[in-house]
Amino acid sequence: MRNLLLRIRFNGSRYHGYQVQKNAVAVSQVFQKALHTVLGHETEMKGCSRTDTGVHANMFCISFHTDNPIAPESLVRGLNIELPPDIAVVSCEEVDDEFHARYSCTGKRYLDKVLNSEVKDPFLQDQAYLYKNCELDAPKLQRIAQGFLGTHDFSSFCNAGSKIEDFTRTIYEFKVWREGNMVYFSVTGDGFLYNMVRIMVGTLIAIGFGKLPEDSIPKILAAKNRLSAGPTAPACGLYLDEVFYSPIGGKEV
Amino acid sequence: MRNLLLRIRFNGSRYHGYQVQKNAVAVSQVFQKALHTVLGHETEMKGCSRTDTGVHANMFCISFHTDNPIAPESLVRGLNIELPPDIAVVSCEEVDDEFHARYSCTGKRYLDKVLNSEVKDPFLQDQAYLYKNCELDAPKLQRIAQGFLGTHDFSSFCNAGSKIEDFTRTIYEFKVWREGNMVYFSVTGDGFLYNMVRIMVGTLIAIGFGKLPEDSIPKILAAKNRLSAGPTAPACGLYLDEVFYSPIGGKEV
Repeated sequence: MRNLLLRIRFNGSRYHGYQVQKNAVAVSQVFQKALHTVLGHETEMKGCSRTDTGVHANMFCISFHTDNPIAPESLVRGLNIELPPDIAVVSCEEVDDEFHARYSCTGKRYLDKVLNSEVKDPFLQDQAYLYKNCELDAPKLQRIAQGFLGTHDFSSFCNAGSKIEDFTRTIYEFKVWREGNMVYFSVTGDGFLYNMVRIMVGTLIAIGFGKLPEDSIPKILAAKNRLSAGPTAPACGLYLDEVFYSPIGGKEV
Repeated sequence: MRNLLLRIRFNGSRYHGYQVQKNAVAVSQVFQKALHTVLGHETEMKGCSRTDTGVHANMFCISFHTDNPIAPESLVRGLNIELPPDIAVVSCEEVDDEFHARYSCTGKRYLDKVLNSEVKDPFLQDQAYLYKNCELDAPKLQRIAQGFLGTHDFSSFCNAGSKIEDFTRTIYEFKVWREGNMVYFSVTGDGFLYNMVRIMVGTLIAIGFGKLPEDSIPKILAAKNRLSAGPTAPACGLYLDEVFYSPIGGKEV
């Protein structure tokens, strides 16, 4: 039996995340249907993560087993014909039998796009968070964000709704930079709690606006209390940007 | 009476062009309503041009007279609140009484975005023309496109549907370049016939694919016959990019 890994991209605007939910359209549902059409049989798809409603993916990984001998390029082409315009398959490769898109994952990088402008961008509707309150100082936020690096208990950066018990995660890299009106927040870690990236970005923006002091990050981490952190940034600016399957150590990703 | 000039941007995906039409939503209708709400009175809006269904604008100009003493910045803010996410007002300035967004216009620049890739981009849905047939040679097309420069009868590059009699237009600049998977076609002229940019781009792409010989442009211009040119490129890749109101001479724009 072959084990295939698909790398896909999707615009999450009209989906309730990746994972199938009751009474809501999820990316996995739409994808499952297309895969069924192309392969001619049901598959048990393994997605690399859940994503929130409205969150996008520049890279998202799905693995599944099949007996179908279809060539990887043909599968990519067939799926891209079946899928709607907001989901695209970028590549397909054969992987070891024990590979699992979620459990084999060693880390992820997220990108948050903040349009720091007084005026909305008609071409980035639902694809960036429009922030008007002040001009964000990207180099300053980049400096402050380094407080997230390393292994910490991230309870303060997790919203209620997840059933997990271990709040320890390791952040390898956090970059903040500006290109024109756009401020980018890029964060790489071994894993992320529910809404963790959005709360980290919301907290940095609150610091940038002066709502929280500049030395807040270590204190918020130590508090282990969601109420001590800033607000959750909107989903529309968030992109799962890369998924890693090779060992990540220190800052090497 | 004040005469105001608004520069706006819009994503044309869900509109039947700028101009009001029967049984179809046009940008001007939606804009007129927002302007009425903010000013409190009807206005006679003058748009810089019609645009086709699905065509976008990085810059589009509207002028109108009003007695309302509202500050330009307040008008911009008010309109951006009233307008839907796919239409944005960028600036407002007072202009001479005789200024007219359409008749005072001395030239325009259009930009056509072609995603030259095997795979669609979920974030550019309806914002670029996906062209898969071959890899376009941008420097070659740039060289060939210089055949459009100067003053010509562009009958061959005009689709039926316009009532005009003078098919003479002047093209000042034509640039073609590639950035990653994206090929850009930028053309500046004193004015454009119905579908003219889309037929010029469609013809260049046909030449790039080998459907038409490389020395076609002068022959197609001389033929003065729409059938001699290539196909009309789709509207979704086309952007009105800049509108000029100062004298344009030669290549100076």
